[in-house]
Amino acid sequence: MLQKALKKIFLKLRLSKKKKFNRVLPIAELVQDRWEKAAFLNFGKGTSVYDSSYIFGDVKVGENTWVGPFTILDGSGGLSIGSNCSISAGVQIYSHDTVKSAISGGVEPYEYANTIIEDNCYIGPNTIIAKGVHLKKGTIVGANSFVNKSFEENSKIAGSPAKLIQ
Amino acid sequence: MLQKALKKIFLKLRLSKKKKFNRVLPIAELVQDRWEKAAFLNFGKGTSVYDSSYIFGDVKVGENTWVGPFTILDGSGGLSIGSNCSISAGVQIYSHDTVKSAISGGVEPYEYANTIIEDNCYIGPNTIIAKGVHLKKGTIVGANSFVNKSFEENSKIAGSPAKLIQ
Amino acid sequence: MLQKALKKIFLKLRLSKKKKFNRVLPIAELVQDRWEKAAFLNFGKGTSVYDSSYIFGDVKVGENTWVGPFTILDGSGGLSIGSNCSISAGVQIYSHDTVKSAISGGVEPYEYANTIIEDNCYIGPNTIIAKGVHLKKGTIVGANSFVNKSFEENSKIAGSPAKLIQ
Repeated sequence: MLQKALKKIFLKLRLSKKKKFNRVLPIAELVQDRWEKAAFLNFGKGTSVYDSSYIFGDVKVGENTWVGPFTILDGSGGLSIGSNCSISAGVQIYSHDTVKSAISGGVEPYEYANTIIEDNCYIGPNTIIAKGVHLKKGTIVGANSFVNKSFEENSKIAGSPAKLIQ
Repeated sequence: MLQKALKKIFLKLRLSKKKKFNRVLPIAELVQDRWEKAAFLNFGKGTSVYDSSYIFGDVKVGENTWVGPFTILDGSGGLSIGSNCSISAGVQIYSHDTVKSAISGGVEPYEYANTIIEDNCYIGPNTIIAKGVHLKKGTIVGANSFVNKSFEENSKIAGSPAKLIQ
Repeated sequence: MLQKALKKIFLKLRLSKKKKFNRVLPIAELVQDRWEKAAFLNFGKGTSVYDSSYIFGDVKVGENTWVGPFTILDGSGGLSIGSNCSISAGVQIYSHDTVKSAISGGVEPYEYANTIIEDNCYIGPNTIIAKGVHLKKGTIVGANSFVNKSFEENSKIAGSPAKLIQ
């Protein structure tokens, strides 16, 4: 009976979202508000975060930044993201990694480093940013990139590992 | 009490799915039907769409097309997908982008262009297709590709950006 | 009324998870336990699997392996993963593919092959592993890779398709 009631609620919410916004989303998004989630995290005004985003540890985000679905913001080693950024769907930004831990069979510890993304950055879909990277203002990162070093302001980078383009 | 009842339902549904189909899925998939979601979107007969797929704006999909988990079909600038396609897990197909908007600090508008995927296309896992791309019948796109231009029928493409292979 | 009660539960669970573990997760993760899910799947002791992981068919996993969010473990053709592995977020490991099926318009069947990942492997974020691959002990796979052939013990590989690095 509860199961039927749940299904009924989800169908009603789905229809209402479709009519109002012309979008059909995973059901968890229908009971979550993207701006409320960002506010709960003390992110800046106008910033939104989808339900399917995982936020670990200490993450700071500025204003009017869009954090897409299927994202990971890992602040376990410290992560700061500026204002007006696009954190596209599938982006994962790390401040730790488990490489040495895994290949040592769990003997070696995890490693941590602070990661910074400044204002007005565009991070393309499915891009991975490794621990310790610092991307300065206005950086564009192409889709599917793996960023493992830092770049100057207004850089346009892409690739795995990411390099300057044009 | 509601919390316990919810947990009980999810465990029951999980067990039932495991027994019937030998698969263990995110709990949201247990209360959603893939073919019903596709029908709600007016997609063609036999097409299915996982709960974790985000559908934005005007998206048309033909018959017997499989749309995997963690996908994004963005029809904000118009998107049409044919019949018998495999839209693998993690694929994101766009008809807009926010590159200029982000790096201008929100001053420039979003940009839109119509995107078309014809019948019998295989789009490999985690591939990103940019706005305005037209992939013709029988195109194979390798895993992890970034497709930012159009190709002829039966092309086999891969890479970021995607190029013809062999 | 049920809708309001649901929302209240999710907010309470979110707050509790934030206070205890300093993380804010998709709501489905709040009603699922990662170690319980792994135990339900008969995976080894200490192994955990996020709610957003899809497990298809016959998958074996050893002890103390971490299976991240947005992952797919496809055992439809047989899949075995060892102990102490990091299966990073966004990783998809296959034992079947639908390439020939899609481009033949559904005439050709799916293809299957057994896939093996041995102990102490690190599989970087968003990496795709194709059917039939065998990765031996201590292999490191870089982020965003597409692995379509097998490698020796302690290999360090990356790229699409993945190749030995340094």
